[in-house]
Formats: sequence, structure tokens, C-alpha cells
Amino acid sequence: MSPDRIPRDADNDYTRAAAQRRREFIEQRCGVSLEHTAQYSFDPAILPGNIENFTGVVQLPLGFAGPLRVNGEHAQGDFYVPMTTTEGTLIASYSRGMGITREAGGITTTVVDDAMQRSPVFVFEDARGARDFGDWVTANFEAIRAAAEATTRSGRLRDIEQYAASRMRYLRFNFTTGDAAGQNMTGKATYAACQWIRQHYPGTISHWFLSGNMDTDKKHSQLNTLRSRGKRVIAEVTLPRQLVEQRLRTTPEAMYAARKTSQLGGLMAGAVHNGVHPANGIAAVFIATGQDEANVAESHASLVFAEVTPAGDYYYSVTLPSLIVATYGGGTGLATQKECLQVMDCYGKGKAKKLAEIIAATVLCGEISLGAAVVSEEWVSSHDELGRNRP
Amino acid sequence: MSPDRIPRDADNDYTRAAAQRRREFIEQRCGVSLEHTAQYSFDPAILPGNIENFTGVVQLPLGFAGPLRVNGEHAQGDFYVPMTTTEGTLIASYSRGMGITREAGGITTTVVDDAMQRSPVFVFEDARGARDFGDWVTANFEAIRAAAEATTRSGRLRDIEQYAASRMRYLRFNFTTGDAAGQNMTGKATYAACQWIRQHYPGTISHWFLSGNMDTDKKHSQLNTLRSRGKRVIAEVTLPRQLVEQRLRTTPEAMYAARKTSQLGGLMAGAVHNGVHPANGIAAVFIATGQDEANVAESHASLVFAEVTPAGDYYYSVTLPSLIVATYGGGTGLATQKECLQVMDCYGKGKAKKLAEIIAATVLCGEISLGAAVVSEEWVSSHDELGRNRP
Amino acid sequence: MSPDRIPRDADNDYTRAAAQRRREFIEQRCGVSLEHTAQYSFDPAILPGNIENFTGVVQLPLGFAGPLRVNGEHAQGDFYVPMTTTEGTLIASYSRGMGITREAGGITTTVVDDAMQRSPVFVFEDARGARDFGDWVTANFEAIRAAAEATTRSGRLRDIEQYAASRMRYLRFNFTTGDAAGQNMTGKATYAACQWIRQHYPGTISHWFLSGNMDTDKKHSQLNTLRSRGKRVIAEVTLPRQLVEQRLRTTPEAMYAARKTSQLGGLMAGAVHNGVHPANGIAAVFIATGQDEANVAESHASLVFAEVTPAGDYYYSVTLPSLIVATYGGGTGLATQKECLQVMDCYGKGKAKKLAEIIAATVLCGEISLGAAVVSEEWVSSHDELGRNRP
Amino acid sequence: MSPDRIPRDADNDYTRAAAQRRREFIEQRCGVSLEHTAQYSFDPAILPGNIENFTGVVQLPLGFAGPLRVNGEHAQGDFYVPMTTTEGTLIASYSRGMGITREAGGITTTVVDDAMQRSPVFVFEDARGARDFGDWVTANFEAIRAAAEATTRSGRLRDIEQYAASRMRYLRFNFTTGDAAGQNMTGKATYAACQWIRQHYPGTISHWFLSGNMDTDKKHSQLNTLRSRGKRVIAEVTLPRQLVEQRLRTTPEAMYAARKTSQLGGLMAGAVHNGVHPANGIAAVFIATGQDEANVAESHASLVFAEVTPAGDYYYSVTLPSLIVATYGGGTGLATQKECLQVMDCYGKGKAKKLAEIIAATVLCGEISLGAAVVSEEWVSSHDELGRNRP
Repeated sequence: MSPDRIPRDADNDYTRAAAQRRREFIEQRCGVSLEHTAQYSFDPAILPGNIENFTGVVQLPLGFAGPLRVNGEHAQGDFYVPMTTTEGTLIASYSRGMGITREAGGITTTVVDDAMQRSPVFVFEDARGARDFGDWVTANFEAIRAAAEATTRSGRLRDIEQYAASRMRYLRFNFTTGDAAGQNMTGKATYAACQWIRQHYPGTISHWFLSGNMDTDKKHSQLNTLRSRGKRVIAEVTLPRQLVEQRLRTTPEAMYAARKTSQLGGLMAGAVHNGVHPANGIAAVFIATGQDEANVAESHASLVFAEVTPAGDYYYSVTLPSLIVATYGGGTGLATQKECLQVMDCYGKGKAKKLAEIIAATVLCGEISLGAAVVSEEWVSSHDELGRNRP
Repeated sequence: MSPDRIPRDADNDYTRAAAQRRREFIEQRCGVSLEHTAQYSFDPAILPGNIENFTGVVQLPLGFAGPLRVNGEHAQGDFYVPMTTTEGTLIASYSRGMGITREAGGITTTVVDDAMQRSPVFVFEDARGARDFGDWVTANFEAIRAAAEATTRSGRLRDIEQYAASRMRYLRFNFTTGDAAGQNMTGKATYAACQWIRQHYPGTISHWFLSGNMDTDKKHSQLNTLRSRGKRVIAEVTLPRQLVEQRLRTTPEAMYAARKTSQLGGLMAGAVHNGVHPANGIAAVFIATGQDEANVAESHASLVFAEVTPAGDYYYSVTLPSLIVATYGGGTGLATQKECLQVMDCYGKGKAKKLAEIIAATVLCGEISLGAAVVSEEWVSSHDELGRNRP
Repeated sequence: MSPDRIPRDADNDYTRAAAQRRREFIEQRCGVSLEHTAQYSFDPAILPGNIENFTGVVQLPLGFAGPLRVNGEHAQGDFYVPMTTTEGTLIASYSRGMGITREAGGITTTVVDDAMQRSPVFVFEDARGARDFGDWVTANFEAIRAAAEATTRSGRLRDIEQYAASRMRYLRFNFTTGDAAGQNMTGKATYAACQWIRQHYPGTISHWFLSGNMDTDKKHSQLNTLRSRGKRVIAEVTLPRQLVEQRLRTTPEAMYAARKTSQLGGLMAGAVHNGVHPANGIAAVFIATGQDEANVAESHASLVFAEVTPAGDYYYSVTLPSLIVATYGGGTGLATQKECLQVMDCYGKGKAKKLAEIIAATVLCGEISLGAAVVSEEWVSSHDELGRNRP
Repeated sequence: MSPDRIPRDADNDYTRAAAQRRREFIEQRCGVSLEHTAQYSFDPAILPGNIENFTGVVQLPLGFAGPLRVNGEHAQGDFYVPMTTTEGTLIASYSRGMGITREAGGITTTVVDDAMQRSPVFVFEDARGARDFGDWVTANFEAIRAAAEATTRSGRLRDIEQYAASRMRYLRFNFTTGDAAGQNMTGKATYAACQWIRQHYPGTISHWFLSGNMDTDKKHSQLNTLRSRGKRVIAEVTLPRQLVEQRLRTTPEAMYAARKTSQLGGLMAGAVHNGVHPANGIAAVFIATGQDEANVAESHASLVFAEVTPAGDYYYSVTLPSLIVATYGGGTGLATQKECLQVMDCYGKGKAKKLAEIIAATVLCGEISLGAAVVSEEWVSSHDELGRNRP
């Protein structure tokens, strides 16, 4: 075996000993010390399904913001929100937004859609072949669903969207996946469905792929913004004028003037959303709660809508069309991540929509706080104070 | 003071005692135990500038992939790449790609651009006022640069792009920022430049904002794909046909057929890039090395170009137009993150482009491995084996 | 009455005399002669519903390209295609493509979708109000359909898509509209449906608008590319290798190399489609046949998919997802436009899909011809010969 | 020669006799009468460079809207705007907008940019080869310019943008083209420049294409919205509150409420602009004045910005970033088209920016009128009255 190869233990690779052996290998090969990555408090036996070549941990600083008051259908009351970040000012800024929205009576949250996708594509002799196939899929939906659902306990195939181009038929399987994020479950179920399709379709399929990229997995797309991926959740608040003036040191009109101008800039830039920085809050909570951090790519999409009300108050809302969250499976059961979920009573079955509501409310607080800081010209000074700016 | 308020120590909030006090507060309020988040091995005194309300850590499992062979201008040789993830199969898949590309002679990497932005917007009486202002900015570039650079040791104002719409002039300040990611530095320097502009512009500025959203910070945009944000870096490899057949159990033609079909699906979906899953590799290395994880939003953009060569081999390239990386400042100095950077000899001054090259090469390996798995129908089975699929 | 006002005849404004009066007014006010615009051969009495202030005509040069061989489901056989243009080379280039595809056996065309939209938006107190409304619309679809269809003889309400954001519910009414383009019919029917909704919805609607811009009328959108607007029609052909070499003076491989490179450029540019110039053929036939020329904005969208077949031939397809065509109503009944439609036996009832097929086939010919000219470096020389380049 | 072939006269194909021969051919082959298309008033000898296979004309109904008051830098005063359309209500609606903006004092117009593009792409062994080439192009700009400008009297090469991806270098040549639209001139000059490059570049170019699709010709792109194509022109007006209430039967606040809602819908839909229907006005004037009607694809892009002023009036602006107009060359010299240009004193040299200003002002009038009709619920009723809705 090559001496370059990272060592693995063929019998049981998820042990402290195996991790240590890998650390020693890296230390020796690279001439560094892995002192801190060696410091972890859990049994590696919980890691299968989460990582290969487990070698140690990255310790990410954790803070809490809050209390955040959420008037949701799944989340109700005050929450302390766990956030991991290395960007100074971030937790302070979200906390400020949480304080203000709580004073305003809290944030109303609503989950309006829920689906996870896998999108196989089938290729035919010509476009008519593809169209015929599409009709057949529609006619055989129940059998396809049965084949898909046979592979999973919690996944349900809600519907199959179809998109036609050239001699291809792109299908988009929409599953509900309980409290798991569901990408694997969805992949496996769709694969089974496609096997059934290939066995039973009377026509000729030239070739097929399990993904034709209309999922669209690990990347933002307009399609996901339109048709949702994960949870589609909306957070709303109306900030009384007085609160804006006293606590944010600006006015609803000034905040809206900045939004208008910023929206046009974003449109001209071809920005994928019209918010300020949802990615910050989403990434910070995602890591703390064991979500797949790569899903920030999809989940950072947002649709912000704000307006000065006739009474002079400020209505502010964020719609997250592609928020992928789990409270079960994936990284949610890891030691610290589970604790972070438990702080919000969001661990395990029946909690995914609650977590989605809390994250949406958190994002809204960050939009308000940073939005106001830009207007009141406190953005740079606050970062200067809390963000060190060493270089 | 409100009993709901997360406790802070006014004198020195970055101590083990302050963190413990906050844990106790959360434990008491939420009825949970924060046993594992309490386990960290560094002195909280290193944290100012990275987080507020420090309470403990999230322990993210760390693995290494590699060796990855990079034939870069800044990164040369074999690297073991630190990756944090909770998604089973990920490290195995990237490792597979690294093994194959190394057999092919390694990956060529090239940094072709480098800039960090802040984009103030100025509003005028009318469009002509905005146009006049734009001309004045061009004429006074040197003075504006001096004002900006007075605030920073390592930042350099390269140029100012201008975009005209309505009665606004959107400026896009492009800085080089040494080995820091540079968002704060850039914000502070641009703010200073804008103060100078406001003092010296002879005309009337109606109002202005430090960001008109053409940065575009923490969100993907076409503009960033066109004009770069952070590093623009390209990774290339030519895989001999034999290697594709033997190691990936498919052919260059089959892989390309999947790409073609997937590209059309992505175009129809309005996907922001034509890659498979760059976000996975980027997020995993970002967290391990102390990058701002929210920047996955911008950094996951990619331009993949592949082709079967006349000789029947497979040329595969990834261009990352908005890769935001630092080897200095931000979270790079945290205990475990610094160790991860040191493993690749990427910590500190003069290393940012090296890290960019390694990440681009890593991304390419992930594209190849997952791309091939989809084609050879090993995608689901490998996830089933390594991804647990518990729910 | 103001002397600046363009004269109108209150009794009957659609007469030769009224037109003449307006010409004289313009001639006098502007000091020009309208000699040629006065030359028209039809009775202005046919114009109500098409134009106000009729003053004369623009004479647009008309040529024919062809014969174009279409193997469609609605269009079968050889067609001479009327095209109006002022761009030299255009008809020559489309004709070249028609000749080659005819030699290859003709173009297969398939209509796979058909719908015209109007998208009202309803605004509520909050997102839950909007969600409740959405459920109510679903439950009351039949009654809403009845209200819509009561206003039209040929329009049928197929379904209503719903999109949720903030406190709004955006509806997208999809109608089939027979052989009319159907924007007016759709607007009127949707308006009636909305009146019914407003009268019967038990909850409180804050306000509403007949269009919330998700139609998306007179502008390109990803949504239209995904869900179609007008006809979704696909044209396909396989060009034998020999034909490409002899008639296009290039090879399938060279043509595909250009496509690959061009596709990446378009993706980077944020181009809305990956074709070469569908707008040229579409605009030329639209004007000749009395279509609404502003619909070029929506109709120019395309999804091109091409590949070198295993046998070395060149498969080439164009999918037009938003082709808005009529063979009845609008400008189709005007004197010359009707003649142009009749040349293809496309005038009147039951012909809209036939026309859609002919246009899609035409577009494909243009893609092939120009695509090949770029590769064989004949693009500039042919324009130099036929496009005059006077300036 | 094939009996299917459309007849051409090898000696002189631009005669009445040749056109008649073609009409007879079509009439005979298709069994139709081409009575009206035969009615044209000009000598076909003017047509070379505009069309091949000239057979007759399409008579498009022409009306005038106005007077339109423009306070431009190139267009000043009142204009009667020629519009061709087959969509009832269109001219009435634009006229209404012209009346109201004139009462408000007229529309301010400003041209802020001007360029026409051709974007060749060069392919290399690898990304470093492409980068080296890019540096060489920058260093040799003057010689490249000289080679380009040697082919044209009125074209000037302003600058060359560069975009890097994979092993390609995409160049975007920006020319000013006097009063011609300039696509042919630009193509020819760029071709000459590329020939010079290929002869003089010391490195190895694998292959190249005259267009890498970053022009982006005959299709909308974000790049064109950002960097302009043709004229970038802005039209602005402030409508006094009273005028909005009395003449448009609504209020600035209600109009803005509709805009807000519509903007969010468009963003969610992935609409390429946030206007209502610029394509309508642009297409109507384009055809009347001999512009290339396919350019509606690019030219319909817009950036609308409106706001209720502190005084309660309504500021409304349209930025057209890609308006391609000519007053010389192309179809501008055709008989009726020339007359239409002359009505606005826009024919010939030195008039292109004037025409751009008039079109932008026209577009703004259409946005105001239709925008108000949607809000005041007069949209359907006015179309019902003027648009016939026959089917």
C-alpha cells in the first residue's frame, strides 16, 4: 500500500485510536501539530454516515443571540438561538434585531410549502418520444409512487413535475421527508422509481441519469425560488415608527429609501435575491445545529418585501423559498449540535418546521439590524469596534 | 436589567468564566445540558473580533482527503486537505477524485483575478447629476484612492467601476486585500473614501449609502461571476481515457453525455452555475480553515467546461469566479483552524492564493467523482453504504 | 381644442379621409412629406382593434425563404416562409438552412405545451391570510373557471398556479386560447374571475392587482422558459456528416466546438438563452404574419441542444418555450399579413399550432446556417456581400 | 434547376419584375393571391443590403402618438412619434402618457453610454495560456485598434473587455459606431483585428471564434444590462400629485403600491427587467423607423425606478441599458421609414442619440399609462373598447 495513503482501520474506522493514527500520519507527513483538533468530547462511534477519515474536530466558537420572540404555528415563545461564526459583530447585530422585534411584539412566521427533490432525466429518440413518456408517467403516477415509497419509511412522493426540452423529459420528484433534510432518502426513492419506470415503460429510453440538474442540488436556481426546495417559510413583523427612531436611530422612510436603491442595484447586478445578508444568519445556525453547511448555497435565497405602512410604521418580511433544515438525521445527532437543537426544543421528530420558523425569524432580525446600520452610518463603526479589522 | 438577557461581563467578556456563566444561564432557562459545547481547548482571549456572547464550541468532525496533487503557481506538490462535514460519502468521494487526478499527473491551477468590493451608491437630483458625478469620480480617482488607502496597511484600491441607472450612480470599489478576505477592510476604506467624496464634491448629492448592493455581499450575482469577487481561480486536468474506464467505470463520452443533459436542465432551471456540487467541497474546507462560512453563497459560483479531447481523453476544468479566502485575519487564527491551515502550509502572509488554488483543485476532484458516480449509477449505492440513510 | 392635438374624426376615425387629415397635420407641423406612408391598398375600416390614429402604413420589404420541409404533426410538407426584414443576409442565411435541412429529410416538429397567462396578485394582512386564500382558490377552482370562461367563447382556463411571497398570493391563470394569441381574452377572463373572487371570498383582501408581473407579459422570464407562454414547440433534425462537410464547409465536431465555447460565454454573460439568433427568424415571420412584434421579447427564448451522434452526424434541436402566435385575431386579418399566412395555409381557425411548428423549424434553420458560418469564417464575408455595410 | 426553387434574377434581382416573378411563383405554388403585398411605392433598387428574394411588402398600419415633450440634450421640444402596431389600445395608451408628461413639463432624457460589441473568443492549451494572451492583448491594444479601425470610417474601438473562464479568453470589443447600429461594421472590424492578432501573437492559439456569445447579439443578457449595448439612455419625469389624481384617476401611493408588488413578482419569476411593457413602445417605433426589429430582444431590457417624493408627487424613471438605434444605414433609408424618421428630424448623421432620447421618453409614457390603468382597473375596459377582443 502506498505510504501516501491516509490510514484506515478496516475493522472499525470510527474509534479514537483510528483518529489518532490519522492525526499522527498527518503530523508526521506535514510537520505540524494537531493538538487542538484532537480535543473532542464524543465517541467517534456516532459518526458513521457523517464523515469518512475522521481525524478530530474543528472547534467553532458558539454564541447565543436572543431572546427571539416567535409567533409561529410551530415555534411559539422566546428562543435563544445558537450561532457559530468567526465574523465579529454578527451575533451582536442579530441580537439587536431580536431585541427590537421582541419589543414590537415578536415575529409572525408561516411555513407555506415543504418538499425535497431529485430530478432524473430521460432521453429519447426524439421530442415526441419524450412527450409520450411524459404522458405515460402521468398515467402511472400511483405505481411510480409505490415504487419510490417502498424504499423509505418517512418519505412521501407528493408529485412529479415535468419539463420538456429537446428529446429529453426532465422529471422533478417532490417528496416530503418528515424531519430529515431528505436528500439521500429522496435520491434512493427516486432511483427505485426510475428502476421501476425502466422496467415497465413500453417504449424505448435511449438513456437516463438520476439527476438532470433540475433538483437543483447544492446550487441556487430560479426554479427553487419559484417551486421551493426544503421549507418555504415567511417571517413578518411591523416595527412601530417610534421603535425605529429610538432604537435604530433612523426612520421607516430612510430605511425604505435604502431598500429601493439597493433593490435596483441588485437587479442590475443580477443578484439572486433582494435581501441584505440572509446567508450570515442561516450559515451560523446551520453549523450550530448540524445542518449540511453546503446547503447555504440553496438556502440563502430570499424574497424581501418591506413597506412603510399608512400609519408610518415599517412592515418588513422575508420569504425563504429554499430553506433546507433537519431536526433528525444528518449532523443533528452529533454531540454539540444536538445540544444546540435542544436549547430550542428542536431535536428529533416533529420539529423541522419549528426550526424553519426560528431560522426565518432570525434572518429577519439580521436584515433589520444591518439594513438600519447602513442607513444610520453605524455599519463601519460597529465592525470597527467588534470586528477587529486587524490587517 | 431584564432576567431574559444573556449575561455579559462588562470588564472582560472573553473568558472561560464568562462563557460558563452563559452556559449556566442557557441551561437553566432552557432546561438542557451543555456538556459538549463546554469542551474546548483554547483560551477565549483569542476570540475578540470573531464572536460575541461566546458560550462554548460546536465540535465539527474533521477528516482529511488526499493526497491532492496540485501543479499550481502558488501551490505545488501533494496536499492533505482538511474537510469538515456531516454528510457521509463526501470525503470518500473527494478522495476518489484526488486519487484519480493524481494518477493523471495532478491538477493545474491558475489564479487570474483578485479583488474584494464595497459598492456605495450616490443619489442625485436627476440622471445628469449622476453622470456629472461619475465623471468627477473618474477625474479624482487618485485622491479618492489616497483617502481609501489611508485606512489600511494591506488594502489597495485597484479601480472603481461605475454603473448608471436612474438618478443614481453605483460605484464598485475593487480592492486587493493581501491575505485577508477583506470585507471589513474594504468597508472601512470605502467609507473613508466616501467621506472624502462628500466633502469635496462640488455638486449636490441628495443622499448616499455605503452599499448599493452591487458588491454583492453574501449573495450570488451574475456581476460577481463576470467581474470576480475574491479570487478567480481555474483548475484543469486531462484524464486519460484508460483511467476513466478503469477507475471511474465509465467513459469520457458517457460523462460528457451526462454533462450536456445536465447543462440544459440547469439552464432551464435558471441555476446559477453549471457545475455539480462545488458548494460541498468549498463549505467543507471553508469551515476547517476558518473562512466565513456565509461566503459559500458567493463562492459556490462556478463555470465548468469539459470536453472529450480528439485523443479520447477527458479534459475537465472548473473556474471559480468568486472564491473568497483568507489565510490571515478572520477565523484563520483560531486554534483548530490554524492547525488545518498549517497542514497545507497555508497559514499567514503570502498564502491566500495558494489556498485558493488548493480549494479549486479540490472542487474539481469532487466534480469528477460525483459526475462519474451519476453516470455509472453508483451514486445511490455509495450513499447507501456511507451515508447511512437512517430515516 | 389644442392645435397640437392629432386630429380625430369623432364619427368614424377609420377612413381614408381621416388618415389623410392626419397626414396633412403631420406634414404641416413637421415640414415633411408623407408620400410613401400614404400608399396602402386596404380599406381602413378593417383596422379597429388594431391601431388608433391610423395615418398610413410602413412598407416593410417582404421576401420568401424556402422551401422548408416540415415533418410536423400540424405542418406537413414544404413551405415558403414569408419574412420581413431590413437586415441583409438574413433571408439568404435562413434559406441556406432550409435547403440543407430539406436535403436531410426535413425537420421534425412537436408542440408540447400551450397556454396564455394573466397573473393577478392579492395582498393580505399577513402571510397566513395569503395562504388561506390560496387554499380557498384551490377549493373553488371550478367556480372561478366558470366565471372566467363566461367571458369568452374560445378561451379555457386550464389551471391556476400559485406562488407565495410575503403577504401576497400571486396567481398565474393558464388559458388555452384557440387560435388567438389571447392576451386580451385572458385579461378579460381573469378580470371577471377576480371580480367573482372578490365578491365571494369570505376573508379580507387588502388590495389586488390584475397583474403581479408573473405573466410575465412583454418581457422574458425564467418562469416562462420553465412553464411556457404561448406554444412550447420543439424542432429537430439530424444532419448527415457529409452534408455538413459539403454544404456547410465544416464538420459536426467543429460546429459543436463552437457551441460549447459559446454556451460557456453565454452562461457567464447571463444570457437568457443558449441559441444564436432565434430573434431574427421570429421577428421576420412575426411581422409578415401579423403577430404582435413586441412579443419577440418573450418569444426569443430558446433552449438549443445539439450533439455529434455516435455515427458522426449532427443532431440539432431548438426548443421554443414561449412562442406566442396567432392565426386568428390581432393583426392576422390585415391585408398583406393575411396573404402571408395564406401562403402557408395558416390563416384562421385550427392553424395556430401549424404556424408554431413552421416558425420553430425556421428558427432551427437559422441556427444551423449562422452557427456554421461562424465556424467556417464566412460570417463577415457573407454580410459584406449581402449586408452592404455602407457606413 | 429545381422547380421548387424561388426564382432569382442573376443580373439584377432588385427590380419590380423580379419581385413580380417571385410573386407569381408563390401564387402558383401555393394557390393564393398576393394582391396586397404587391402594393409598394418605392423602387426596389434601394433594397440591396436590406433583404434577399424581395417579393413585395407587408403594409403595417402606422399611427402617431404625441405630442411628446422631450427635454433632452439631443432631442428638445415636441415630437409626434410614429408607431406601427396591430395591438389596439397601444397608441391610445402611449398618447395618454405623452399628454400627461407634457402637462408635467416634459421628460428629461440623458444618454450615458454608447457602444456596440463583437466578442471573439480564443482557446488555448490551458488557462495560463489564456491569461498570457489576455496580457498581450492589453499590451497591444493600440495596434489591435488600428487593425480594427482600418476597416471602417465611422467605427471607433473604445476598449476591449476581457473575461476569463477555463482555457478560453473571451474578449468584448466595444465600438462607437456613429449613427449606424453598427453590428456589421463591428463584426467586420473585429474580424480584421482578430486576423491581426492571429498573425502577431507569438504564442499558440488552439482555435478561435468571432463570437463567443458575450456580445450578446440578438438576446437579452445581464452583461448587456450592466455594460450597455447600443445606447444607455435614461428618461425621467416628476408627475405632480394633482395630475396623477385628475388625469390618471389614482394616486402616487397606489401606483407605487402596484410597482412594489409587481417588482417582487418579477423577481420571483426571474423576469429580466422590472418595467411593465417597454417592448411595446420600442417595437412600434423600431418598425416605423427602420430599426432591426429582432433587436427588441436586447432593447426591451429596462431598469425602472419610481418613488413618491416627500412632496407627494411621483418621480418615475426608465433606464434603457441596451437600446440599439440607428438613423443611418440598415432600414433607415427605406421609403416610409425615412419619412417617419424625418417627422422627428431624426434621419441621417448626428441623430442617433436624439432618436434614443425620443424612444426612451416614449417608453416612459407607456409605463406610466399602463401602470396607472392597472391600478385604476381601467386596463381591461380600455382594451375591450379599443382592442376588439373578437375571438
